[in-house]
Amino acid sequence: MEELKERILRDGKNLGNGILKVDSFVNHQVDPRLMYACGGELARRFAHVGASKVLTAEISGIAPALTTAMHLGLPVVYARKSKPVTMTNAVFLTLAPSHTKGVMTELIVSPEFLAGGERILIIDDFLASGATIMGLVRLAQTAGATIVGIGALIEKSFEGGRETLRPLGVPIESLACITSMEGDRIVFGGCE
Amino acid sequence: MEELKERILRDGKNLGNGILKVDSFVNHQVDPRLMYACGGELARRFAHVGASKVLTAEISGIAPALTTAMHLGLPVVYARKSKPVTMTNAVFLTLAPSHTKGVMTELIVSPEFLAGGERILIIDDFLASGATIMGLVRLAQTAGATIVGIGALIEKSFEGGRETLRPLGVPIESLACITSMEGDRIVFGGCE
Repeated sequence: MEELKERILRDGKNLGNGILKVDSFVNHQVDPRLMYACGGELARRFAHVGASKVLTAEISGIAPALTTAMHLGLPVVYARKSKPVTMTNAVFLTLAPSHTKGVMTELIVSPEFLAGGERILIIDDFLASGATIMGLVRLAQTAGATIVGIGALIEKSFEGGRETLRPLGVPIESLACITSMEGDRIVFGGCE
Repeated sequence: MEELKERILRDGKNLGNGILKVDSFVNHQVDPRLMYACGGELARRFAHVGASKVLTAEISGIAPALTTAMHLGLPVVYARKSKPVTMTNAVFLTLAPSHTKGVMTELIVSPEFLAGGERILIIDDFLASGATIMGLVRLAQTAGATIVGIGALIEKSFEGGRETLRPLGVPIESLACITSMEGDRIVFGGCE
């Protein structure tokens, strides 16, 4: 998606070690117009998969998942990283390593909102190593739900997430595929 | 806003001790259509305040703040509760008690995205004691920004947040005002 790539080149920063700072428009400050457009494009790409629900992980997955769900007319569920007091019953819980925090993070979904038979479209801001998304996959599978697609705003292909996810056999889409972040450069390419 | 009140009565649960569970449509599972409508109504009520930016706190403020910002055509910033590795410079930080977690939470905003002279509209999911919103007010004031309005989806008037915020002298709006949660009831009223 050209508009997102141009914005990454203009406002993104390569901090080194594969870390891309996009907090002026994705994950601290959010540009709602761009996010709505990205949601529209993800919805278009997954229009054919027959999803019944969008699943993401708090925090920075919420904005792209919400705008995608808006366009698809579906509910969205975000996995919590801590259990709020309103979550009184047993839950689905898995652990995933946090790429940007260097610790293991819990991902928690209430069984009320992730049921057997649901067709789950996973949306997140980044597809990097795929560890967070694989955590969401495990939660959905534990619930007896089916994964029907995986989408991200930004993919860092050199971190291998797509290879990790490919065995699931579902469509994987990203709107901006970064193939290299050598030095201070940000290089886009194809991610098939 | 009648649609939100009806949804609270239908799907919300009074868990006792003033805790309202709305995680089937607000803060775990989100109904994007309802959230978009709520954002539209908040945008309508604050159309006159001349805001330049919407400010909220992760996690559950993101959805209503994003949809409000969409309707107003403004950027939205969500205060982080932990400092990601991409936030490399000095930050604005304050502490606020978390109502539903019983601990003090950090609220962090990068000075890049909260500048002197900005006109800040604060949006959150709940207005209860006002403690989180007062944390956002302190961050904005530290940045030299001006608060121009405060909006929430759901207000619990019996927790006194409006009295805490009133000295700021800005419009305060909530879309569903709960005046009592005695027993297992949820009673709506006026919140002026």
